[in-house]
Parts: sequence; C-alpha cells; structure tokens
Amino acid sequence: MSTPLEVHAFATANSVKVPIALEEMGLAYRLVPVNLRQGEQKRAAFKAMNPNGKVPVLVDRSVAGEGDLVVSESAAILVHLAEKTGQLLPRDGQRRARVFEQLFFHASGLSPAFGQAFRVALQPSPEPEAKSQALAEVERTLGVLNEILERHPYVAGEEYSIADIAHFGWVWRHQAIGASLDKFLFVARWLEEVAARPAVITGIEKTLALAQ
Amino acid sequence: MSTPLEVHAFATANSVKVPIALEEMGLAYRLVPVNLRQGEQKRAAFKAMNPNGKVPVLVDRSVAGEGDLVVSESAAILVHLAEKTGQLLPRDGQRRARVFEQLFFHASGLSPAFGQAFRVALQPSPEPEAKSQALAEVERTLGVLNEILERHPYVAGEEYSIADIAHFGWVWRHQAIGASLDKFLFVARWLEEVAARPAVITGIEKTLALAQ
Repeated sequence: MSTPLEVHAFATANSVKVPIALEEMGLAYRLVPVNLRQGEQKRAAFKAMNPNGKVPVLVDRSVAGEGDLVVSESAAILVHLAEKTGQLLPRDGQRRARVFEQLFFHASGLSPAFGQAFRVALQPSPEPEAKSQALAEVERTLGVLNEILERHPYVAGEEYSIADIAHFGWVWRHQAIGASLDKFLFVARWLEEVAARPAVITGIEKTLALAQ
Repeated sequence: MSTPLEVHAFATANSVKVPIALEEMGLAYRLVPVNLRQGEQKRAAFKAMNPNGKVPVLVDRSVAGEGDLVVSESAAILVHLAEKTGQLLPRDGQRRARVFEQLFFHASGLSPAFGQAFRVALQPSPEPEAKSQALAEVERTLGVLNEILERHPYVAGEEYSIADIAHFGWVWRHQAIGASLDKFLFVARWLEEVAARPAVITGIEKTLALAQ
C-alpha cells in the first residue's frame, strides 16, 4: 500500500519542521529527497507542485472526496496536519490565536532574519557590514522570542504546539549562522527541552539523512 | 457602548489589511492611530501588546469567557476574524489549505521582499546594487503570484479570501517601491478588481486617514 502522505524535502531548517510534526502526531509518511545542491527545486516537475520553487511540499492523498492535496509553505503544512489530526493547535479562543500569531511572527520575522543571515554566512567572503546587519535582525527577533518565552514555557503559551515546531526549525540552526543564545536564556532553555523530545530527535535524523 | 474591536494601526501596507477585512465582514471597529513617525510602536504601552513592536494589533473584547484577546501579525488577525465570522476562509479541504499556503507565501516571501525594497527606497541615496537586488526579489515573488493568478481568478482559487487581502496590502503599494506590473498582467488584472471592491476602498480611506 502506498503511504498517503509524501513529504518532498531536503536537509533544511524549513524542511525539518514537517517530519517533526508528523512524528509528533504519529502519522506514517514517506520522505522524497529534493536535492537543492543539484537545483532540483527549480525543475519543472517540482515547480508544478510549488511555483515558488521551495521545499518542503506535502502531498496528502487521504483527503476524502478530493484529488491529491499538494501544499507548500512549511507553516501551511503544519496547520493542515494539525487540523487533520486535531493535535498541537487549540480549537478556539486566545490559545488558538496565539499559535497563529507565532506562526506568522516566525514566517514574517524570525525566519526571514535567519534566512538572510544564512545566505550571508554561505558567501565565500561576506562583507562585514552585511554580516553584522543580518545578525542584528537575528538578535532582535531572538530578543522578542526570549521575552515571549520568559512569560510561558512554550512560544504560544502553556502548551507545546505547531508554533514551537515552526520556530524550532530555524533556532535549532543558530550556530550555522554564527548566532549565540548566551543572551537569550529562555530561548536556550526552550531549545534544549524541545530538542530532547523523541519525535524531534527522529524528525531531525530522518531529515538530515536526505543529504547523505 | 464601546466597540468590541479595536485596531491599533497606521497608514501602512500591513495595517490596511485589517480594516479591509473588517469592512468586508461588516464588523464595527475603532481605529487607534499608532504614529510610526514618532516611534509610538517602540513605546512600552505598545510593546506590552506586541513585543515585536509592529502594527497592526487587534484587541477583541467580545471573545466569550476570556479576557481581552490581543493579537498581532496582520495575517493572524485575518485568520482570527475569518474564523470568528465564518467568512473568507473555507472550512476544510483543498480550498482551506490553499488560503493558508498563500497567507504564508505572503508572510515569508512576498511581504519580506516588498518590505526590504521599501526600506531601500526610503534611504536618501540607496546603493544601486542594494536597490536592484531588492527589486529582483520583488519581481521574482510577483512572477510566482502571476503564475498563480493565471490559473484562477483569486490567489487561493475561485473565491475571494483573506489571502487576497493579505497580498493586496503590499501589491497595492508596488509603485512606492519602484516596481511595475507591466510584466505581470494577471497580477495587474487582479489588483484592479480587488481595488474596486467597496470594502477595499473604504478600508484604504480609513487607513490613510490615520496619517493625516
């Protein structure tokens, strides 16, 4: 029998969020490598799934009465999986709004900051000004997250949610962009706790294996 | 009687989305100006509502059994309002996933690209390289949107949704960053149609009045 859930991904900060969520939710899935080093995400077959040319993409063949559901954008995939299973996303009120607020703060704030710093770090000889500018915005967004995590144990409140998985994807990679958590003790505490979850460990292992 | 919905905003691309959605949904609301020119978004009173120090912020006093619901991130506000009213966001399946995909493509792709180009355009004498780099990413994201709008009339399919409102906020401001829609005919057609909606006209008017 073919697995109804297929994740097209590579060993990246955005990709890792999806296997982590699937492991947390106990869903079976198949990982399909999209080799970014060979530019596979720019090929026509991939762009037919996501015209934006970015991993991850989820193909869900189990949606009743519809054809294959093809979804891009890691956070949109997390929302789809949470609503499909009724897990890691409260149904209403403050608690639900807080999760969406963090998902969008991640997508529009923390993730672009980390992504830009990562692109700068990859350059053979990055300009010092570009590097310090990129790291300043990384530190600003980490400061916001630290303030949030000082108030409650998880990013959207008292409970672990898909918003923690979204932020984790990039914060887990902070060393790759030359950022330190020394000034962000609440982020460091949260990162350590999330990284120790069995589903997170398994999700990371399977994602890293895509690049081997 | 105090209005249960309060929108803290200024005349910006992200702010305008919220009044447009409220007008579309027929909800009463009160706009509270946050003067960005005077740095009001960095003051303690505002940062208590949003530690990220950005407009817009929604205060909803009408959520049953809970205190004031304070939500930041324009797209998270749109999701909250859509779920509150049952409008402009399909309940399930492909159509719903498509709206979230576009909301997150906006938040993580189009909006950061336009935002960066806007910051460059505001500089007294922007470096030509920084300017062309920023505009290249604006054009790339407009190209993705154009491809999407070639397939169906609205960004998430056959129906107008909160994802159209999200993209509209920035695409409406394309001239302010020196971008042209000449090469993006489907985006231009969509922009013209959305801009002509009575709720959009009223939402824009009220938002622009905040800076007067």
